[in-house]
Amino acid sequence: MKSAQRKTDQARDTSLVSKLVGMVPRAPAADATAVQRHIDSLTKPRGSLGQLESIALRLALIYGDPPPPLDNAVIFVLAADHGVAARGVSAYPPEVTAQMCKNYASGGAAISVFARAVAARVVVADFGVNADLSAIPGIEHVKILRGTRDLSQSRALTIAEVRRAIVKGAELFTRQLPTPDIVAIGEMGIGNTTAASAMTALLTGADAAAVVGRGTGVDDATLARKRSIVEEAVARVPRDAGALRVLGEVGGLEIAGLVGVILAAAAARRAIILDGFISTAAALASVRLCPAVGPFLVASHRSREIGHAVQLDALGLHGFLDLGMRLGEASGAALAIPTLRAAALMLRDMATFESAGVSRGGH
Amino acid sequence: MKSAQRKTDQARDTSLVSKLVGMVPRAPAADATAVQRHIDSLTKPRGSLGQLESIALRLALIYGDPPPPLDNAVIFVLAADHGVAARGVSAYPPEVTAQMCKNYASGGAAISVFARAVAARVVVADFGVNADLSAIPGIEHVKILRGTRDLSQSRALTIAEVRRAIVKGAELFTRQLPTPDIVAIGEMGIGNTTAASAMTALLTGADAAAVVGRGTGVDDATLARKRSIVEEAVARVPRDAGALRVLGEVGGLEIAGLVGVILAAAAARRAIILDGFISTAAALASVRLCPAVGPFLVASHRSREIGHAVQLDALGLHGFLDLGMRLGEASGAALAIPTLRAAALMLRDMATFESAGVSRGGH
Repeated sequence: MKSAQRKTDQARDTSLVSKLVGMVPRAPAADATAVQRHIDSLTKPRGSLGQLESIALRLALIYGDPPPPLDNAVIFVLAADHGVAARGVSAYPPEVTAQMCKNYASGGAAISVFARAVAARVVVADFGVNADLSAIPGIEHVKILRGTRDLSQSRALTIAEVRRAIVKGAELFTRQLPTPDIVAIGEMGIGNTTAASAMTALLTGADAAAVVGRGTGVDDATLARKRSIVEEAVARVPRDAGALRVLGEVGGLEIAGLVGVILAAAAARRAIILDGFISTAAALASVRLCPAVGPFLVASHRSREIGHAVQLDALGLHGFLDLGMRLGEASGAALAIPTLRAAALMLRDMATFESAGVSRGGH
Repeated sequence: MKSAQRKTDQARDTSLVSKLVGMVPRAPAADATAVQRHIDSLTKPRGSLGQLESIALRLALIYGDPPPPLDNAVIFVLAADHGVAARGVSAYPPEVTAQMCKNYASGGAAISVFARAVAARVVVADFGVNADLSAIPGIEHVKILRGTRDLSQSRALTIAEVRRAIVKGAELFTRQLPTPDIVAIGEMGIGNTTAASAMTALLTGADAAAVVGRGTGVDDATLARKRSIVEEAVARVPRDAGALRVLGEVGGLEIAGLVGVILAAAAARRAIILDGFISTAAALASVRLCPAVGPFLVASHRSREIGHAVQLDALGLHGFLDLGMRLGEASGAALAIPTLRAAALMLRDMATFESAGVSRGGH
């Protein structure tokens, strides 16, 4: 009976994941040429707002021109533990994942204060922390497992567990009311730069050694161990493996959950602001699973973690905040929210040369 | 009698400028080592917030630790015309300066919408526009002259006019009530990248050719003309000229006004967010006039104007917004405000490893 129920659930998840993929809009909400003409009519020298104009264009293609003001910004921080942390790949002990969840819930973490600075709301969700957080107010309880299996020994997750986490991530997005205008994503999980490194190698074709960095700040010996763990794990997986297989072999519950958030947010025509190395690994998996997701993604900062540039290149994205950050927990994505709001307001409220009676330049 | 009055005014301005210089605090408001210890006690891997930690340190030294939340942010946009615009150094006709002032006043410019996106207030001031803007509501009328003299023919301003603009800039700051928590500065003035280029060469010792860029987007022929105008103007001025002399020979009324805003804001212990090439030229002049101003300056973005990097290097500052912007009018400075608020809130509200019960890493 229990096994029958599990099979029904699995069939439901399989169907929901493919429905989600199908729900992501394929057509832009505005005509790119018309939006560009609008941008060029605004009272500023042509192109003088640089990448902000590209962001404005992207927002118009997502939401229509003009986009909404993006007031209701929601930051999703998904947390889970990683079996591979037992191999000592982090400078911090695994119990920090649970401790930091409590810190998010009580408003004391970097993302808590950054969210206040940018007038956004944080949703913290336990997708697989190896501790019972059910009594902590302010945490969404979505625990799939108490952490992944050790990816250096076996696959981290079954495909069914991956699908479960994706579905739960999508549901986490859809049950936010009112529906967020814009989404920023981040994570917490001791050991998760190891998982994200392996995912990045598999999803971009980059050399494993080129995408393994120091994470929260490991020493040389730990970096070498981390690198060989990633190389071995990557070698186990076919280079053309699909997103679900990659997430299962070397991924994480919070990363698969973020894939769900991304799919649901894109299905709802919302821009998704990526943070650093882990959330961008989730973005790579999302785009592999559903290429239509690509136009909904916006980069925020350039992480100091070396593999992040490889990921952004693969996605064709440009991180515009250059702060040398490497914290995760959506800290960089949060700081990008006001700039996206400025790009949206540019299309909503800026005067044109005609409307303001300003003389045009010679070109 | 009129001449006697003028002499009295000039003596008053001379005295006020030196008083202002004397009022800028020489000692930091916090002990750097203690602040760094505080930063390192917060729940994040040491150094993982990168430049944001340097900004937080700077804010603590300006305001004390912790700094205030920086809610009341005021963006000063000073406008003036430039005689040299008659030489055709801009892609836009000189009347655009006045037209854009009206656009700021009616809320249709980029800075108008960016200010809304970051919850800041814009103060627009006419320091020398070659048009009568006195009937336009929403513009502060501080006209010193109707534009500078053509710097390619003679000095742009007398030293008395420079001092007048500085004093008026300082008064513009001090009459804002409540006193701004933090200040962003920007400008409008067709032809002012020519003035700022000459100032930058004189104040940094850089080669004139290396700091002349395309401004709002001039073509090759205009760029060559602009470059030779700057080279000739720079050649006229002794390399060790003081800030007032440089502002007089090749500066601008809005630039001198910004020097006044900077001095008064520093005297009031407020952080001053620089924008792009013109406002950073004002910062260079301010630091030459009063080196104690340096610690109060914060860079925002990296302008596409080539001389901006030279200026930031000379000031030892790092622009963290990499958007390829080159608009001016404080557009980049405005976008940096939320990140500075985040840095301040980090020191105010972030939990420590001890207070949050989070395990420390191995280093």
